[in-house]
Amino acid sequence: MKFDQEGNVTSFEKKKTELCQELSLQARDLRFQHTTSLTARNNCIILRMAALKAILTQESLMVLDFRGLGLERWLVLELAPQLASQTHSLPFEFRALEAILQHKVNTLQARLNEVEPVILDTLESLVDPKILSADRSKLHVLLQNSKSLSELETDIKMFKDSMLKVLDEDETVEEFCLTKWTDPRVFEESSLGIDHAEEMELLLENYYMQAEELGNRARELKGLIDDSESVIFINLDSHRNVMMRLNLQLTMGSFSLSLFGLIGVAFGMNLTTAFEDDPRAFWLVTGFMFLGSGLIWRRLLSFLGRHLETSVPPRVMQTHTQTLLLLQEFLFLTHLIVLLSHGHSRG
Amino acid sequence: MKFDQEGNVTSFEKKKTELCQELSLQARDLRFQHTTSLTARNNCIILRMAALKAILTQESLMVLDFRGLGLERWLVLELAPQLASQTHSLPFEFRALEAILQHKVNTLQARLNEVEPVILDTLESLVDPKILSADRSKLHVLLQNSKSLSELETDIKMFKDSMLKVLDEDETVEEFCLTKWTDPRVFEESSLGIDHAEEMELLLENYYMQAEELGNRARELKGLIDDSESVIFINLDSHRNVMMRLNLQLTMGSFSLSLFGLIGVAFGMNLTTAFEDDPRAFWLVTGFMFLGSGLIWRRLLSFLGRHLETSVPPRVMQTHTQTLLLLQEFLFLTHLIVLLSHGHSRG
Amino acid sequence: MKFDQEGNVTSFEKKKTELCQELSLQARDLRFQHTTSLTARNNCIILRMAALKAILTQESLMVLDFRGLGLERWLVLELAPQLASQTHSLPFEFRALEAILQHKVNTLQARLNEVEPVILDTLESLVDPKILSADRSKLHVLLQNSKSLSELETDIKMFKDSMLKVLDEDETVEEFCLTKWTDPRVFEESSLGIDHAEEMELLLENYYMQAEELGNRARELKGLIDDSESVIFINLDSHRNVMMRLNLQLTMGSFSLSLFGLIGVAFGMNLTTAFEDDPRAFWLVTGFMFLGSGLIWRRLLSFLGRHLETSVPPRVMQTHTQTLLLLQEFLFLTHLIVLLSHGHSRG
Amino acid sequence: MKFDQEGNVTSFEKKKTELCQELSLQARDLRFQHTTSLTARNNCIILRMAALKAILTQESLMVLDFRGLGLERWLVLELAPQLASQTHSLPFEFRALEAILQHKVNTLQARLNEVEPVILDTLESLVDPKILSADRSKLHVLLQNSKSLSELETDIKMFKDSMLKVLDEDETVEEFCLTKWTDPRVFEESSLGIDHAEEMELLLENYYMQAEELGNRARELKGLIDDSESVIFINLDSHRNVMMRLNLQLTMGSFSLSLFGLIGVAFGMNLTTAFEDDPRAFWLVTGFMFLGSGLIWRRLLSFLGRHLETSVPPRVMQTHTQTLLLLQEFLFLTHLIVLLSHGHSRG
Amino acid sequence: MKFDQEGNVTSFEKKKTELCQELSLQARDLRFQHTTSLTARNNCIILRMAALKAILTQESLMVLDFRGLGLERWLVLELAPQLASQTHSLPFEFRALEAILQHKVNTLQARLNEVEPVILDTLESLVDPKILSADRSKLHVLLQNSKSLSELETDIKMFKDSMLKVLDEDETVEEFCLTKWTDPRVFEESSLGIDHAEEMELLLENYYMQAEELGNRARELKGLIDDSESVIFINLDSHRNVMMRLNLQLTMGSFSLSLFGLIGVAFGMNLTTAFEDDPRAFWLVTGFMFLGSGLIWRRLLSFLGRHLETSVPPRVMQTHTQTLLLLQEFLFLTHLIVLLSHGHSRG
Repeated sequence: MKFDQEGNVTSFEKKKTELCQELSLQARDLRFQHTTSLTARNNCIILRMAALKAILTQESLMVLDFRGLGLERWLVLELAPQLASQTHSLPFEFRALEAILQHKVNTLQARLNEVEPVILDTLESLVDPKILSADRSKLHVLLQNSKSLSELETDIKMFKDSMLKVLDEDETVEEFCLTKWTDPRVFEESSLGIDHAEEMELLLENYYMQAEELGNRARELKGLIDDSESVIFINLDSHRNVMMRLNLQLTMGSFSLSLFGLIGVAFGMNLTTAFEDDPRAFWLVTGFMFLGSGLIWRRLLSFLGRHLETSVPPRVMQTHTQTLLLLQEFLFLTHLIVLLSHGHSRG
Repeated sequence: MKFDQEGNVTSFEKKKTELCQELSLQARDLRFQHTTSLTARNNCIILRMAALKAILTQESLMVLDFRGLGLERWLVLELAPQLASQTHSLPFEFRALEAILQHKVNTLQARLNEVEPVILDTLESLVDPKILSADRSKLHVLLQNSKSLSELETDIKMFKDSMLKVLDEDETVEEFCLTKWTDPRVFEESSLGIDHAEEMELLLENYYMQAEELGNRARELKGLIDDSESVIFINLDSHRNVMMRLNLQLTMGSFSLSLFGLIGVAFGMNLTTAFEDDPRAFWLVTGFMFLGSGLIWRRLLSFLGRHLETSVPPRVMQTHTQTLLLLQEFLFLTHLIVLLSHGHSRG
Repeated sequence: MKFDQEGNVTSFEKKKTELCQELSLQARDLRFQHTTSLTARNNCIILRMAALKAILTQESLMVLDFRGLGLERWLVLELAPQLASQTHSLPFEFRALEAILQHKVNTLQARLNEVEPVILDTLESLVDPKILSADRSKLHVLLQNSKSLSELETDIKMFKDSMLKVLDEDETVEEFCLTKWTDPRVFEESSLGIDHAEEMELLLENYYMQAEELGNRARELKGLIDDSESVIFINLDSHRNVMMRLNLQLTMGSFSLSLFGLIGVAFGMNLTTAFEDDPRAFWLVTGFMFLGSGLIWRRLLSFLGRHLETSVPPRVMQTHTQTLLLLQEFLFLTHLIVLLSHGHSRG
Repeated sequence: MKFDQEGNVTSFEKKKTELCQELSLQARDLRFQHTTSLTARNNCIILRMAALKAILTQESLMVLDFRGLGLERWLVLELAPQLASQTHSLPFEFRALEAILQHKVNTLQARLNEVEPVILDTLESLVDPKILSADRSKLHVLLQNSKSLSELETDIKMFKDSMLKVLDEDETVEEFCLTKWTDPRVFEESSLGIDHAEEMELLLENYYMQAEELGNRARELKGLIDDSESVIFINLDSHRNVMMRLNLQLTMGSFSLSLFGLIGVAFGMNLTTAFEDDPRAFWLVTGFMFLGSGLIWRRLLSFLGRHLETSVPPRVMQTHTQTLLLLQEFLFLTHLIVLLSHGHSRG
Repeated sequence: MKFDQEGNVTSFEKKKTELCQELSLQARDLRFQHTTSLTARNNCIILRMAALKAILTQESLMVLDFRGLGLERWLVLELAPQLASQTHSLPFEFRALEAILQHKVNTLQARLNEVEPVILDTLESLVDPKILSADRSKLHVLLQNSKSLSELETDIKMFKDSMLKVLDEDETVEEFCLTKWTDPRVFEESSLGIDHAEEMELLLENYYMQAEELGNRARELKGLIDDSESVIFINLDSHRNVMMRLNLQLTMGSFSLSLFGLIGVAFGMNLTTAFEDDPRAFWLVTGFMFLGSGLIWRRLLSFLGRHLETSVPPRVMQTHTQTLLLLQEFLFLTHLIVLLSHGHSRG
């Protein structure tokens, strides 16, 4: 179940042990234990990029276990022509490595491109200041995509780390130039100005930089999610404060209505008052009730207005004074009505 | 109380000092002060992985103080066969070290596998947008597992650090190849292509990478917990805002009922009005009360709707105007009923 | 479509391949794949700073694809004179590189200068303790600018990284001194005290430091946004607590009014009481209602005051006791009025 | 005011300048400007660990300014015997250095052991899901201990840094081996297998690792505090949501009572209705009031239940429809009672 | 406008270009582009510490542009004597550099000492658990100081970086020892045990460590601000929960009063009941109203108590059951009163 290429594609099946003997590799080298790895072993480059497992020799690229992974189309339609085209003078392993790394970077980019607009859209609609409560299905979408983004970040980091491990040591980079070690012509050529190790370093560095840029974009996106969450919280809190003030204003209204409604209730008692037969009393008391509650409400509203604008925190003393003032005013009004009614009853 | 192995298992007891003399080690080397350590001393590898303390010489592996730690089963059933199997050509210390490191990585992985699904499940149910308040027993489970995760992260970090300390210096890696230093055959063999130091580096690096992947998974899980907590907060806040709006709408209803109920209370007073005997007055006033409060409520609701949709914060001026408008409307209605009742009393 | 300069400006069009041949560069070198790069290749410095792509040789600076990017004015009005002025004795590539790096740093600084006052202003107005709810349009502005700031930070980081890659290795710095390699006079001069490589290092380090300072300012700004968000939250929460206390105080008032209003309702029932004809009963009961509710309210308010000042959290027991005390007081008052009314009815 | 030791303790006072001359040190070396330092100077090790200032020469350890710092007991009871015991063959400075570093690590550990259980207990009681509001005295304790933890972390970091500075360079480690430089016997001995520099490195590394483990524990504790704070917030928020729902349910009840109470108020007006003398009317209207309010409340509660379970955010449209439905139902009920009463009045 | 010193102070004015020629420096070296820099150029040390720009040669220290910066007093009163005192044998540049670095560290320390107590005081008063709402003027103070702290942190970091850049390379440290390069006596002296480069390294390291300690303190302070903010949030939330519970308890009370007040309203209707003339009916119904509402309130309160203590989140089912129970109880009470009143009317 392998796949050989040098321009033309041949597909055959072989056992792992046979393959090891053929390339004089050790069984351990073909275990592919890590999800992302890139190593040079005995004149072969053995690499794994998630699902793609490949062995790259001087004149062929073998892709292992490629079936059922959605890679077939890419392998046949894109990889084959890319390897065949001999536009630049560099040896085969350069073209093959470039094709595979390009594929990996493209895959990472595709995943980021898939996640990014969803996140941006979701954030856009969540941050909208008009909404009162966050749409929870959108929150779910955000959480899912944020998780994908974390996984993508880890994958990018691992890809970068595996590249960096090769780039950090000059010897490993040289080991990656498979052709150099065997071909005497190359040895000559290198004295003519083209240094294969340097070319390999450039190639790897190029993809390292591309991965770095993807990583930067992913990090920026994470930061944007954090910032947006703060804004969502401030939005929700603001809405709540606005509603709470409205509620408070209405509670003030209800309170003043209750206070003056009590007068009505008092006059509704089956008890003897002096005003039962006074035709003006009804209008007087009713007017007093409505106007009084309107006045008190207005007073409370303006008190609230001043209260919220002062930068010093309200002290209990102050509200007590305020309460006493209100009681005074209330007593004054009560006094007034008593005087009026007495005046009336005498009259 | 030691445990000797080279294929067959022998168990015997010895004092520490005797052991030191036998292996020409110093007493200090066998103190095992750190929970995770891996050092080469005088042709022995001395390692400790949490509960497992072992000394590895060229031809034997001694496990110290193994009783009562739940390690017996692993030691007898798995370690012995693994050491006995001579599938690859590498010397004994490689097999022994591989077996122990594999055991350690498996232990770490098992701990992560235990913690991960619990956390994912708990988060899944906590993030559920339908719930109004977080299930506190689940929060407790989450906190416990988050703590375990932190401890696991520290253990992974310490395991990685102890590996890295060996890997960072080529000399230390060479010291770990016990056979190389004594066996002349190995010296020859190394010129045949198998470099022991490199093999050791690969072996250690392999387990380092596995630990790294575990660390990445643990880190992703931590990130997911953080993200989910934000979502839980937004969910709870959204619920609160929704409830607060409902509350506000009902308060508006209660307020309008109170306002127009005051009229009923006024007519309930034992005071003389001109309408006592008018049969239509009852229906008029009752209808006015119910329709008026319905109208005012509707007006308040639409005001709230507009209020929450505007992006500019509501100003006190605005609500004052609104209040005045309401008062106007209310006075107009009062005027209307007075006119009607006067008309009626004349009629 | 190129742009040649050595004092006088010439603009001509050439194909990429021709250019490559002319400068004996490889096609790959002119792909400009990364948004920020700075490399020396075959006696040329190839650099890209976002939109600006340039090739710098020993005696000329070529700017590629400069049309339609808003760079024309800068190129003609500023770059040309800067390159022409031969104030200091250093070779051409130094002047050109300095002009370009200065331009890049200026661009970054301009972007920071644009974002910074907007953020500071927005934060200033959002942090204002007088406002009850955050202005959501300002939050939107903040979010937009915070996003720009993140992008700017990434750009600064990438600029710094590309500089650092050159500075980290002495050889690369030397490759940047194009003149040194070819001009024998320079070789002599260097023995006279002016070391070109060191000059180049100083030049690059200078711009690296400037970018570092920009990066520091951006980081401080990010920190300020975070701190301000905390303050906004505390502000909103404080407002809410103040409103909630007012609401609670009013609810207490409404509660006491309801409690004593119940007495009025009781007396309003069409049931026979002994006091119907007692003229003092009306004033007694009305007074009892108003004074009782006033007293209870006051008691509740002082209870609230004490309640909020104690540092121990209120226990259910305590509030129960409080409730019982209230009920007792209430029963005592009821008893009093019953006694009074009985006394009256007998009288 | 110094303290000399080589097995037996002698205490004497000397001026700093004399001491400097005696040991041929410079005055600056004895200034002890940093709270934690460890340096080798002219065949002396000068160290400071917070309060403990010491000079260690080849055959004696001088502790400076030891009075009034709570160190006396440790110095006399523990340090003296430790220095006297010559169990291992290493020179004096090793024993002395080990004793002091062990003392420092013990001090750090003691501080962590003091802070850790307090923090764990406080968190345990704060995280308790049953409590409605955080105990503020416990919050204060937590804040104090969290501050101590930060200081401890800094101290551990500084201790690690000062060790690392010595460990990073092989020469400094060798300078620490005071005996090596002067004693010819040691020079021979070193060829016998005991390398003093390596022993010193092991000794320092050992204490470095212990400090690292303490640092890890402190970091884990910090993480636990952060996680617990999130859980506390979620707990408080959940409690609030639960209370808010209860409040909302009661508000719904109050609203329906007000709505149907209005009917009672209407019938309480001193206006002529057709039902005054109908004996069934009282029970009819009363029953209508109670049953109606019960029905409406039930309807509102089930509406709330459905409202909170839907994942889409409630729209204003929906609540309007709901309001209209309620009004309809209410009008239907009103219609019903009117029909009934008319039917009755005819009967 | 320069300032020359070697013991005695001379102040004169010179142009930059003249100065450059005199010291054979380049114009670029005197541009002082970075706020903190420390470089050796052609046997001079050129340094800038914020406002202080200085050139240090072997026998003189020139301070540039010193006017109008508040530095005069320090320059004349402190710097001059410090430079004049020749207590230690080290050359002039050591004394001058020490004086300037000491001044810089003192300035940083003074800034930290200014900010630290303000922050601690503000936090102390904000964390106070007794306060209901954060004092917003104190929040403003905190924000301002937190900003200053960030700036201070950046300055400390930049100071440390500029020191580290010198310390990292041994050659740069040697360049800083101006005397060494020219004075033959020094060359001899160095063989007598005093190594100038090492002395310079110690001097710089000393100030680096002091800056590090300042940085640690600043970082701890930042951490304390973060921790305190969490505690403030928990405090505010706790207060809110306590108030909300009180509110809920009062709402429960109001609800039960409304519920039983409805009975009173019912009896207040102008409808015929059988009890109008029963003298006991008034007391029965009134007692029923008050006792009933008291009972229901008590029941609701104990329900709330149990509700908040259970760790499982309340389910809608449960509250429904609770509601039904309440309705049942209420119906039972209604039944009772009906039975009683019927019994009475028959009697």
